[in-house]
Amino acid sequence: MTAFEPLNPDYDAEVRRRFAQQPYNLSIGARVDKVAPGRVELVMPARADLVQHNGYFHGGAIAGLADIAGGFAGWSLVAADQGMLTVEYKLNIVAPGLGEQLRAVGEVVSRGRSIIVTRIDVFGEADGQASLCTTALQTLKVMRLPPELLAGAA
Amino acid sequence: MTAFEPLNPDYDAEVRRRFAQQPYNLSIGARVDKVAPGRVELVMPARADLVQHNGYFHGGAIAGLADIAGGFAGWSLVAADQGMLTVEYKLNIVAPGLGEQLRAVGEVVSRGRSIIVTRIDVFGEADGQASLCTTALQTLKVMRLPPELLAGAA
Amino acid sequence: MTAFEPLNPDYDAEVRRRFAQQPYNLSIGARVDKVAPGRVELVMPARADLVQHNGYFHGGAIAGLADIAGGFAGWSLVAADQGMLTVEYKLNIVAPGLGEQLRAVGEVVSRGRSIIVTRIDVFGEADGQASLCTTALQTLKVMRLPPELLAGAA
Amino acid sequence: MTAFEPLNPDYDAEVRRRFAQQPYNLSIGARVDKVAPGRVELVMPARADLVQHNGYFHGGAIAGLADIAGGFAGWSLVAADQGMLTVEYKLNIVAPGLGEQLRAVGEVVSRGRSIIVTRIDVFGEADGQASLCTTALQTLKVMRLPPELLAGAA
Repeated sequence: MTAFEPLNPDYDAEVRRRFAQQPYNLSIGARVDKVAPGRVELVMPARADLVQHNGYFHGGAIAGLADIAGGFAGWSLVAADQGMLTVEYKLNIVAPGLGEQLRAVGEVVSRGRSIIVTRIDVFGEADGQASLCTTALQTLKVMRLPPELLAGAA
Repeated sequence: MTAFEPLNPDYDAEVRRRFAQQPYNLSIGARVDKVAPGRVELVMPARADLVQHNGYFHGGAIAGLADIAGGFAGWSLVAADQGMLTVEYKLNIVAPGLGEQLRAVGEVVSRGRSIIVTRIDVFGEADGQASLCTTALQTLKVMRLPPELLAGAA
Repeated sequence: MTAFEPLNPDYDAEVRRRFAQQPYNLSIGARVDKVAPGRVELVMPARADLVQHNGYFHGGAIAGLADIAGGFAGWSLVAADQGMLTVEYKLNIVAPGLGEQLRAVGEVVSRGRSIIVTRIDVFGEADGQASLCTTALQTLKVMRLPPELLAGAA
Repeated sequence: MTAFEPLNPDYDAEVRRRFAQQPYNLSIGARVDKVAPGRVELVMPARADLVQHNGYFHGGAIAGLADIAGGFAGWSLVAADQGMLTVEYKLNIVAPGLGEQLRAVGEVVSRGRSIIVTRIDVFGEADGQASLCTTALQTLKVMRLPPELLAGAA
């Protein structure tokens, strides 16, 4: 994996702050576990409304978590007045999402001036064991943050 | 669009019944609006925990709705003892999801014996106007339903 | 399908001219059949090195044709000093590519200032019958044409 | 990366033999460089009809090579009477394909009984330096080989 130089030295706090500003992230119970330049790990504990009757995490919840993990992996690299917009993503659900929690690892594959591409792997974790449930490829667009978000940051 | 012949004459009731068995579908407030062979329309009203601070539907909620719409479009064509498994999908978010509700239209593009491919368009609806927010392409696998689901159907 | 207003009134000739400037397009024997704002149809006759031993068009040739059809559907909408870059695409091969020729129909789904999304269907044609072989979703980036391409256009 | 156990002990020779049976592979000048269980590396030297006027490899040629690399990564794991069918793939072209040759590295991410998922990275190589040009995610279906291919193998 290539090492990336973040444009914002405060990238770690910035990722955690932006993450907390999005109600959806909180509503599914996701939280930021680790942040590095171009790499973000999220976890999401199992919860009755996120799983199916069989105990599997629902594909929609998995997709949401993957989308966010990739988006913030990109966000960790941009300037303080920039943010991320998801252009598209594609995911393969390779196994049922099972376990006490899901872990989504988003990593930047390629960083352009206006387009960032990320790869996301989502694992089900139980008893300290992780097993791959979903892999995804995502295209992000770097956008200028709207003034109210910059103000909100002050 | 090709016309498809459903294997289960009771396809309409079957889609609605299977839909209601998945807790995630209900938890995001989605409901089945229309069912035809190879085509399903779902709607999902706006709700505080599904939208961002700016009032846009979150990408994870959009993805979940798209996934379900495509899945049941496929389900409408299979036999009574068969169900659908999402293998993968890809979606482009072409505009913010805005409005009183989202409408997801899932349509079968191709139907094989073991693989079904669907296309899904998601629209934001407000004041009787619909505008495209997301388009997706999805691969489904036809699976044999596990006994407990068949029993549950009895 | 939404009607799109082209930025370049000369879009038809422009698409055909840009198409002819790309050696790969000619090397696979593709040609432009129809051009409309946001919509391009290409055809590619069967040829020994494009098909498999069983007479099916190879997936690589199908992908190449789909990519070009979507790219020029986008190109038909932009200004005279702009061009298209493929950011990504996803394709489902739903049936073998069979017939005297393939026809790829590229259509713009969404047009932003910097990002254009297209949908492409590829059909095998034989005895006047068309049957769907591949469907694709593509993300394009609008770019400024480099000077040598503008000069080459003079 | 998980280690995979091939079903066919003769997997290396099998991959090379099946590769050589597909005329398209040869027509684009691709050749098998390395084979391991669940992993195949192909190379494709630059050639006038595979590159653009600017010397970049065309996206269609890149896609074709990626498709084949993923397909044979999957093929390396199946039984002697089984083969691979590409269901779908998605690729991001993250940088122009440049150099003396392209190298495509296909790796199995997940192996099911009927579905195999692969990841493919394509690099441009020049002066012993490799730089990522494309990354892809692919879904394969395990199929039974038709009798004429088994006969041809005898």
